[in-house]
Amino acid sequence: MKNVRLGMPKDRVDTVIDGVFAIVLTLLVLELKVPEGLSLQQLPGHLLELAPKFEVYAAAFTCVAIGWMSHYFFASVIIRTDFTHVALNMLQLLFISLVPFTAALLGSYIDSPVALAFFGLSAAAYALVGTLNWWHCTRGHHLTHHALSDTLVRDLTVALCAYTGGWFLTVALGFVSPRVGLGSAIVVLIVSFMLMLVMQPRIAAAQAEAESAPDFEAEQDALQVA
Amino acid sequence: MKNVRLGMPKDRVDTVIDGVFAIVLTLLVLELKVPEGLSLQQLPGHLLELAPKFEVYAAAFTCVAIGWMSHYFFASVIIRTDFTHVALNMLQLLFISLVPFTAALLGSYIDSPVALAFFGLSAAAYALVGTLNWWHCTRGHHLTHHALSDTLVRDLTVALCAYTGGWFLTVALGFVSPRVGLGSAIVVLIVSFMLMLVMQPRIAAAQAEAESAPDFEAEQDALQVA
Amino acid sequence: MKNVRLGMPKDRVDTVIDGVFAIVLTLLVLELKVPEGLSLQQLPGHLLELAPKFEVYAAAFTCVAIGWMSHYFFASVIIRTDFTHVALNMLQLLFISLVPFTAALLGSYIDSPVALAFFGLSAAAYALVGTLNWWHCTRGHHLTHHALSDTLVRDLTVALCAYTGGWFLTVALGFVSPRVGLGSAIVVLIVSFMLMLVMQPRIAAAQAEAESAPDFEAEQDALQVA
Amino acid sequence: MKNVRLGMPKDRVDTVIDGVFAIVLTLLVLELKVPEGLSLQQLPGHLLELAPKFEVYAAAFTCVAIGWMSHYFFASVIIRTDFTHVALNMLQLLFISLVPFTAALLGSYIDSPVALAFFGLSAAAYALVGTLNWWHCTRGHHLTHHALSDTLVRDLTVALCAYTGGWFLTVALGFVSPRVGLGSAIVVLIVSFMLMLVMQPRIAAAQAEAESAPDFEAEQDALQVA
Repeated sequence: MKNVRLGMPKDRVDTVIDGVFAIVLTLLVLELKVPEGLSLQQLPGHLLELAPKFEVYAAAFTCVAIGWMSHYFFASVIIRTDFTHVALNMLQLLFISLVPFTAALLGSYIDSPVALAFFGLSAAAYALVGTLNWWHCTRGHHLTHHALSDTLVRDLTVALCAYTGGWFLTVALGFVSPRVGLGSAIVVLIVSFMLMLVMQPRIAAAQAEAESAPDFEAEQDALQVA
Repeated sequence: MKNVRLGMPKDRVDTVIDGVFAIVLTLLVLELKVPEGLSLQQLPGHLLELAPKFEVYAAAFTCVAIGWMSHYFFASVIIRTDFTHVALNMLQLLFISLVPFTAALLGSYIDSPVALAFFGLSAAAYALVGTLNWWHCTRGHHLTHHALSDTLVRDLTVALCAYTGGWFLTVALGFVSPRVGLGSAIVVLIVSFMLMLVMQPRIAAAQAEAESAPDFEAEQDALQVA
Repeated sequence: MKNVRLGMPKDRVDTVIDGVFAIVLTLLVLELKVPEGLSLQQLPGHLLELAPKFEVYAAAFTCVAIGWMSHYFFASVIIRTDFTHVALNMLQLLFISLVPFTAALLGSYIDSPVALAFFGLSAAAYALVGTLNWWHCTRGHHLTHHALSDTLVRDLTVALCAYTGGWFLTVALGFVSPRVGLGSAIVVLIVSFMLMLVMQPRIAAAQAEAESAPDFEAEQDALQVA
Repeated sequence: MKNVRLGMPKDRVDTVIDGVFAIVLTLLVLELKVPEGLSLQQLPGHLLELAPKFEVYAAAFTCVAIGWMSHYFFASVIIRTDFTHVALNMLQLLFISLVPFTAALLGSYIDSPVALAFFGLSAAAYALVGTLNWWHCTRGHHLTHHALSDTLVRDLTVALCAYTGGWFLTVALGFVSPRVGLGSAIVVLIVSFMLMLVMQPRIAAAQAEAESAPDFEAEQDALQVA
């Protein structure tokens, strides 16, 4: 309980993270440029040529959206913050902020293993720092509610490690064959989406359980000092 | 009541949505470019030529503002979140983030039914996913206060379906005649504005009623865990 | 008290407004371009030539910052929202979002009364809609705490009207002489800054008084439903 | 206690500050441009040439992230706001918003003492205004919890003065030798990071102590009026 007390309220950490994610999600559209000076007859053909740009837009948006969703779900059991938690979150934002660049690079050089490596390594670095951050927050219930079950923590840790490993594997496969690498990236996204679908009700249940724990009121008061 | 308990607090969902809307509202101005290197005599004439760009700016801003207002009013009766609610919200943001592109496209090719179709279809897709999301949240009072009346839910569902249908109709009419399509878009915006004007007091009254419901305190506690 | 109950919590309105202001404040820097390809000897001279751009940056930033501060102080006595309040706030954001364009225009054509008119009229329109909004919120204590004194409301209304009139006067004076118009703009900014300095403690005192009013707890409960 | 009562809730101040920091953190990536029209063989070489741009990106991101972290830690003991606090925060944002320009300038002219002076002076100005703001908030516990210890306030004041002085020293050293100036900037960043690491637990402990102080409930009520 002492640890929880010594942590700080974390509302502003979430605000700045949500802000960066919102901006990255919105900056991706700047890669879609309106073709200028065409006749009405030429327009449909030129828009059709933009199709690959739309695909990259949708894929990058999905990546960042999944990144935000996982941050939201995992962070919802973390109720306080400290220096290390804040610093690691900032490091995660550094890699998320790179996505408009790495997505544009991959969009222009879709067959290049180097471009896929840039995209995959920034995703892997984000995931790796996120895993470290999760480990820091949860060991000894350092920054979580003390009623959070060890089973849930362990399962979420396994999920994070698998996600991180998936991105490193994607980069490696890209150097074997760019197509296989892209396929691996899609598999990583689908699997992580499915994992969140399965995990979210367990996280929500853990929160509800913590809410009804006997010393909840006291911790809640501390939380509201923000 | 069990469902409400198992949902998660939704504050960060609203934060990231408000962030994306705020950025889209502000990015629209980047389409207005200051003419360079003119004499003071030439300036007024060139600014007059920018009039159509200002019209598109005002129209796109109105569209996005109405989108945000409707999200705000509808979401105000949704008090918890779950995986599906979050995922559908992310999908809605994908279509909202496209507006700076589709608005610029329509601004450059105002007579093109294809440009109107891009604008209208992204608005229709946003509305369609929003309708699905609303249906998901309200069925069985899944994520709303249990005191929310079925009549209000039904009326708001009808309004959402009409709004969605209006955008699909607009796209179809645009292929008959671009002018008729643009007129239809304006009618959709005016009608949806009027609908919100009528519905907002009923939503506020429903909230006030829910606030004074006997088990309100308990749900409120759960809500503040965020 | 019935009116207050029927209003809705306004937290998301403030979030989207703060978001738009934050983005406008940050977009202004995009007008400052790094000169490319100079030698180390040439750099200082070229940076010196950028001085007028820095002045416009600082002036536009000050304008927007004063706009945000006044919104913050005035809105702090408004505790609920309704359709009209939200819609007028959206209209205010439309004019605030224009500032990156009108500031860049004025920066490029500092001697043009037309450029000053664009800048001044968007500021005046923002102020005019803000005055209407304030009148809507405060008449009959519609959306404010009922303990808010009529004297304070009246004095703040007078300040808003003076600010709005000041911008219209600035535009008119600009057509007499651009220099006089710019001087008038600076006077408007300094006076409004001084007015806020004088008014803020009275607003804070009114809030503190409202906090200790007997039925405060009940209204507060309503407020937290957000 | 009277002073605390007369201050206003400060939640929106933090929101707009977090918004500006989030946007500045994200705008930095716009300096990284995807090379166009290269063959797959040429791409790795050209990306290697971008290495200095990545270094500037990482350095500028670190600067802004440290700026946000220090704002977050220092502001967490400030529980109310007034006119001066808001106005000085706006002035701090003016200097933070300049970072995308000063970072790009330093990235293009890494050997120029003038470019380092632009970067260093905006950092120094931010730190200087921040120090004034801290002094304003803490003297007589004007806007802090009255249980905040004088020792902690003094130690944090010393840290802020050292940070401010470090940036002025960096600018001066840059004119002696650009390399020495860059080295000094790195030392300032590392030292300030270490200082926050040491100070954060003391700030968190002070907050926890304040939370359990006897009249905490009353102040907390006042705080929640936001």
